[in-house]
Amino acid sequence: MTFQNRLDAARLMVEAELSLKLAVDTNVPARLRAAMQEAVLGGGKRFRPFLVIESAWLFGANSTAAITVAAALEAIHCYSLVHDDLPSMDDDEFRRGRPTVWKAFDEWTAILAGDALLTLAFEWLADANSAIPPAAVPKLVSELARAAGPSGMVGGQIIDLEADKLGQPPQPTVTHIRRLQQMKTGALIRFACRAGPLLAGSTSEHLEALTLYGEKLGLAFQISDDLLDATGDAAETGKAVAKDAAAGKATMVGLYGPEGARTLLADTQSQARAVLACYGPKSAALIEAVDFMAIRRS
Amino acid sequence: MTFQNRLDAARLMVEAELSLKLAVDTNVPARLRAAMQEAVLGGGKRFRPFLVIESAWLFGANSTAAITVAAALEAIHCYSLVHDDLPSMDDDEFRRGRPTVWKAFDEWTAILAGDALLTLAFEWLADANSAIPPAAVPKLVSELARAAGPSGMVGGQIIDLEADKLGQPPQPTVTHIRRLQQMKTGALIRFACRAGPLLAGSTSEHLEALTLYGEKLGLAFQISDDLLDATGDAAETGKAVAKDAAAGKATMVGLYGPEGARTLLADTQSQARAVLACYGPKSAALIEAVDFMAIRRS
Repeated sequence: MTFQNRLDAARLMVEAELSLKLAVDTNVPARLRAAMQEAVLGGGKRFRPFLVIESAWLFGANSTAAITVAAALEAIHCYSLVHDDLPSMDDDEFRRGRPTVWKAFDEWTAILAGDALLTLAFEWLADANSAIPPAAVPKLVSELARAAGPSGMVGGQIIDLEADKLGQPPQPTVTHIRRLQQMKTGALIRFACRAGPLLAGSTSEHLEALTLYGEKLGLAFQISDDLLDATGDAAETGKAVAKDAAAGKATMVGLYGPEGARTLLADTQSQARAVLACYGPKSAALIEAVDFMAIRRS
Repeated sequence: MTFQNRLDAARLMVEAELSLKLAVDTNVPARLRAAMQEAVLGGGKRFRPFLVIESAWLFGANSTAAITVAAALEAIHCYSLVHDDLPSMDDDEFRRGRPTVWKAFDEWTAILAGDALLTLAFEWLADANSAIPPAAVPKLVSELARAAGPSGMVGGQIIDLEADKLGQPPQPTVTHIRRLQQMKTGALIRFACRAGPLLAGSTSEHLEALTLYGEKLGLAFQISDDLLDATGDAAETGKAVAKDAAAGKATMVGLYGPEGARTLLADTQSQARAVLACYGPKSAALIEAVDFMAIRRS
């Protein structure tokens, strides 16, 4: 299979899983279910699920278990987009060319749909009927919560919004921007890459290798995102362009300039690829992902 | 110890635990930490933590583990209050006589602080350094998520707000109101009472007994809450009175009238007490809680 085939396969598998999981529970009120489905099934490259599924495949973990973890991670990614888009946060009316959840429904429904998806992610990970080995559940719950919580994704969003809403000047230092990136987008990508070895019960050496790969990939992801915001066009990104610069947010491009950011991106990509070199052909898709991710986003 | 001593002790223990857990992580941005602390440490009877700690004590479960579960449950209860108070939801400016989190900070900080507390609850439950037996973690995570999620608390909030915001007439049937109550407030109280036997690895008979107690207690809690809203005063409740009736919400008082609701409350309380009769003096605090809970709220 080509890289694109594998990316498509991961996307289809996780979307089927998400669709099923959001359809079965008759106790969920119709409006809430519709908003959750809109939040989760409204498109996207499903890049994080792809990383979970490929890192699991690399170490021979159970693929059904990997799809469950991928669905939980994607639910958290999608909840974060729903909340980030709210009027009191980024105030975005469109995402991927579609009305955002608060725009399609209303604010209270969007807030509660996000809350519900965040909660469901942990329910799915801990479900006694899932294929995840029970012994792996505490570690997966703990790591996903840490990546998504106040010292991870939510903390990154607070720092980002402080600059935007409170007029606090961005701190354009490498330390500050790297910390912000690691919290806001890096933590979930890192978790995705660790999920495979965690599910497979791999050695600490393998876990460390995939962690390093995930960290480099996350950094490359953020640099390319900043470059896309600074230089892309709205048709390509499906959202308003140069919003970050306009909002005074601290970005890699703001720190290094477009050329400096491109050089750092290329270095970071090389490092990510180098970590996987020893795994041979089985890691081909993860290696190709390094380039792919710098061109297009989920 | 008297009942009040035990309630105070549970409150002090869980507040110390919450205070510690919200203080240690230096990676959490200061604004987010302050908002979480305001949300969690701003008072309250800590009635749900008391239920966790007492149900754990009844079956001889590890008390340190019980306090961790109690803290996680209280974090989820507090996050739900922070989100419910938002302008786009119940639009409350005061709770327990203090400004609500969105009022003390702002909307985006309140939304993110709620998200962070919800996420932390699961991190605490799954923490490898906690006293919770690893084998109990998946069940606790799964049950807490189910109680708090779209078929539980969040689903109940959606149904409640639909009547309020969308002008949908309340459906004053026993089935509808009971379902709403079970989702909105019943599910977390039921979880609190199951947490003890789950932690202790008790027999299914004990788990069923505490489940029934929790269900009756939750129903009594909701009836007395409806009565308080319909007949209480603002000084006692610390919030605006008769808001539910004004908002056209379906309540027990609306269905049965004040006298009918009082009769149902007394019957439900008797049933809750009867379930615990066989446990003797060790269940005294849980039996007293049935009356206490109908007079004052957390």
